[in-house]
Amino acid sequence: MTDFWNGIPEMSERLDAVRDRMKTVVGSDGFPLADAIQRLIDAKGKMLRPAFLLMAGRFGRRPKDLTDLAAAVELLHIATLIHDDVIDESDTRRGVSTVHSEYGSKHAVLAGDWLFSRCFRLASDSSSPENARLLAALIGALCSEEIHQDLERCAWPRSERNYLRKIAGKTAALFSLSLRAGAVETKASLSNIAALTRAGYAAGMAFQIMDDVLDYESSQGAMRKPVAKDVREGLCTLPLILAVRACPGRIEPLLGPNKPDDATTEAIVAVVRESGAMDAARSRAAVYTERAMREIQRLPRGAARDELHTTIERLLTRTF
Amino acid sequence: MTDFWNGIPEMSERLDAVRDRMKTVVGSDGFPLADAIQRLIDAKGKMLRPAFLLMAGRFGRRPKDLTDLAAAVELLHIATLIHDDVIDESDTRRGVSTVHSEYGSKHAVLAGDWLFSRCFRLASDSSSPENARLLAALIGALCSEEIHQDLERCAWPRSERNYLRKIAGKTAALFSLSLRAGAVETKASLSNIAALTRAGYAAGMAFQIMDDVLDYESSQGAMRKPVAKDVREGLCTLPLILAVRACPGRIEPLLGPNKPDDATTEAIVAVVRESGAMDAARSRAAVYTERAMREIQRLPRGAARDELHTTIERLLTRTF
Repeated sequence: MTDFWNGIPEMSERLDAVRDRMKTVVGSDGFPLADAIQRLIDAKGKMLRPAFLLMAGRFGRRPKDLTDLAAAVELLHIATLIHDDVIDESDTRRGVSTVHSEYGSKHAVLAGDWLFSRCFRLASDSSSPENARLLAALIGALCSEEIHQDLERCAWPRSERNYLRKIAGKTAALFSLSLRAGAVETKASLSNIAALTRAGYAAGMAFQIMDDVLDYESSQGAMRKPVAKDVREGLCTLPLILAVRACPGRIEPLLGPNKPDDATTEAIVAVVRESGAMDAARSRAAVYTERAMREIQRLPRGAARDELHTTIERLLTRTF
Repeated sequence: MTDFWNGIPEMSERLDAVRDRMKTVVGSDGFPLADAIQRLIDAKGKMLRPAFLLMAGRFGRRPKDLTDLAAAVELLHIATLIHDDVIDESDTRRGVSTVHSEYGSKHAVLAGDWLFSRCFRLASDSSSPENARLLAALIGALCSEEIHQDLERCAWPRSERNYLRKIAGKTAALFSLSLRAGAVETKASLSNIAALTRAGYAAGMAFQIMDDVLDYESSQGAMRKPVAKDVREGLCTLPLILAVRACPGRIEPLLGPNKPDDATTEAIVAVVRESGAMDAARSRAAVYTERAMREIQRLPRGAARDELHTTIERLLTRTF
């Protein structure tokens, strides 16, 4: 049971079932690195995407077991994590050693590819062609976005508009698709599908902004990663964009064509924190959170709506 | 027009259409590395998989334009090539520089992932769910096989049976699927589907055996790769297996736990060539070729059958 779902025991159980399904799928083919992938599944992320999918499934007119599609969505996420670790040469993920560090980048690339194929197979077995297609389209968009992001490294400062477009194509698109897919599969009404799709979009925007704010705040322990990882990596997120605008001339001289060193990073973080940009960014997130909540209010009253409401509220006020 | 198809101008034209479709798909999303992938498409492999798919489509009872599905199959192939080049750290492919060498392994991994997604999307748009599923399953099997093969590096000598199982899961499965998918999509009769599936399997076995024989024979120029690349990489293919059996005690001392050096490789190649193993391996290929031809004879007479017959014959007697 992941910590995040302790407050919703029923969801915690359903996610355990998704996790079991994932482990069965991964273990079924005699795939050589199945153990390593299963360890990653056991290490338990928040499993937000499958959780949203399952929650949205409760608004449908024709209930359907969404365990397989939820497993497919999370396997896809894990495939991208394995490839991310190859790309970033990361040694650990969720506290366990990465496939990349244990088996080398060669096997990690193939393990990710294999998972992609298992995911698409599971998705085409368990979902409508429309959702299988949406899933494929989304992964394409994410890969494309990753490359764009990398090409834009150290191209600062960026506009707020550019930043919002980027997170819309990434986190917001994924949250939105997860909720939409659950609703479509269970034949929810068009108005419920539309409300869930929009709620997912707004929640994803708020979630990513908060993630980027927390990156400037957290200590190593809470986030399990160093403070200001984004700026260290040459990535320009909302707090930095707003700080440049709030204190013209103070940050620009610190931003060079290469990733900033430790001292420069600290100086940037200090100005961002003083500038009021953190609060300004939080208030942007709050606008999106409110929008998500308004969409959720359009849904029929009941336990399903309460559950979704509580989850999004907890997610957007988290400090980790 | 690729050299291989010069004798069948009509196929050459159809493959040009597939190539155009691939380039359109790759160029349509504003993907940052579209140019690099399009260059790889232009560099023109033999495009055997889409060609088989198109040929099989002529045996159906309900003709259908298979350009999109053929493009999906070849895009999948290109995605695996891009990842292979990351894995092998190759600098050139088909005479052009690899995505890996030009943009680094990070972007090459993402470019492969992006192509996977485009391929699955195209496949689910243009084919029956059954074929989309088969395609996904097959890619999974190929990744799994690649890792197995890598884990077995320098584990010599191997059994003929193990070798045959390995190439069955790799080349034969892919040839078989390409022919089957073309037949299924155009609603061919069950007996035609079965004959094409078996013909593809047998042709794939023969093709891979011949490929492994040629690896011991060709000079660098003809194959565009060094002689005995397999044994240099620690891979044990049919000629080596048969040579160990034909000349007990002569090769085993040369096979160590690491990849052989140049001198050892030359010594191994010399024994393999003297041992009669090359002819023995060729005769195994001939058995599969005959089996493929027998299956093709079961198909209805006509231009479609003649075309398939000629292609497989040329493929299996090629010297490059």
